[in-house]
Amino acid sequence: MDFPSKLIENAVGELARLPGIGKKTALRLALHLLKADTDITASLAEALAKMRFEITYCRTCHSISDAEECSICANQLRDHAQVCVVADVRDVIAIENTGQYRGVYHVLGGVISPIEGVGPTDLHIDSLVERAAAEGSEVREIILAISPTMEGDTTAFYLSRRLRDLPNVHISTIARGIPMGGELEYADEITLGRSIVDRQRQVS
Amino acid sequence: MDFPSKLIENAVGELARLPGIGKKTALRLALHLLKADTDITASLAEALAKMRFEITYCRTCHSISDAEECSICANQLRDHAQVCVVADVRDVIAIENTGQYRGVYHVLGGVISPIEGVGPTDLHIDSLVERAAAEGSEVREIILAISPTMEGDTTAFYLSRRLRDLPNVHISTIARGIPMGGELEYADEITLGRSIVDRQRQVS
Repeated sequence: MDFPSKLIENAVGELARLPGIGKKTALRLALHLLKADTDITASLAEALAKMRFEITYCRTCHSISDAEECSICANQLRDHAQVCVVADVRDVIAIENTGQYRGVYHVLGGVISPIEGVGPTDLHIDSLVERAAAEGSEVREIILAISPTMEGDTTAFYLSRRLRDLPNVHISTIARGIPMGGELEYADEITLGRSIVDRQRQVS
Repeated sequence: MDFPSKLIENAVGELARLPGIGKKTALRLALHLLKADTDITASLAEALAKMRFEITYCRTCHSISDAEECSICANQLRDHAQVCVVADVRDVIAIENTGQYRGVYHVLGGVISPIEGVGPTDLHIDSLVERAAAEGSEVREIILAISPTMEGDTTAFYLSRRLRDLPNVHISTIARGIPMGGELEYADEITLGRSIVDRQRQVS
């Protein structure tokens, strides 16, 4: 693409490095910013730089945080006996939005993936084991909430091996089954099979 | 959405103000920036701010420019007798990318749209008329390259009324017809009709 201005060419080039944004979308965004008030661009640029340079990670759960300890770990009203293990900060946000979980989290920072060169030592697994095994640890249950992909299942399997010898700590995984609003006939066999094996007694 | 950090909440909020970017995409972009090198975010923020605050508009054609006169208007190798009138800078870039046009441009800055409250005086129409009517003007042909929507057609009609009394200036519009690779049977009747009426003599 030929641009009439070096400034816009640079901005489009930088925007197009973001995932899922191609040159045409980047140009549309850049022209939108040009048409809008200068404040919009100023506050966008400032928010991005501030986020990148000032954000820290919680020393306990490795989630993103504004302070040394994140707002969830620091909250004494949450149940510190339950630790939900997730791959990513995005999963923390998704689970928080359900409003169904009152425990704390542990963010691995990814999943084990030999193809992408991610091994167990690249993830926050040791710190999870230490956290659960530490003397006086409050942890009573570790909930594995990892996406059921090939890499996710490998990670969950590895974690359950590492954690199984801990005394007084139960390991659980999130329920698999037919999603709400899902149609039985379109569900894959494995999910449907699991939903029958793991059936729940009706509470009347 | 609940965020574990005010910094990320701000960044997501700012990103989600861009057109076509919702909260989920904004979060994905923010987390991508967090995972990548700090340089990436720094250069993105700088490129956006630099673009917004340093860009100017060409005094002749109103296209975006790094200087008082854009690189196309300043180029003496281009044909200054041909002026292509477009709604938007995006159209300039699209036409430049064809490599088929050696004239100069005039960017209106939009199209006449009573619904959105855009009238002829909000666009760079007077300056186009002045440019073509000025004493010693080189302009010999004005090519209307405006999208054939309702608003675009209104704008083109208005322009041709304003420009028709200029001596020695021809008005033309870009050709309408079947797009390259388009199938006749799927073309709408108006386009197909125009392509027959405006048929071209085969050059053998």
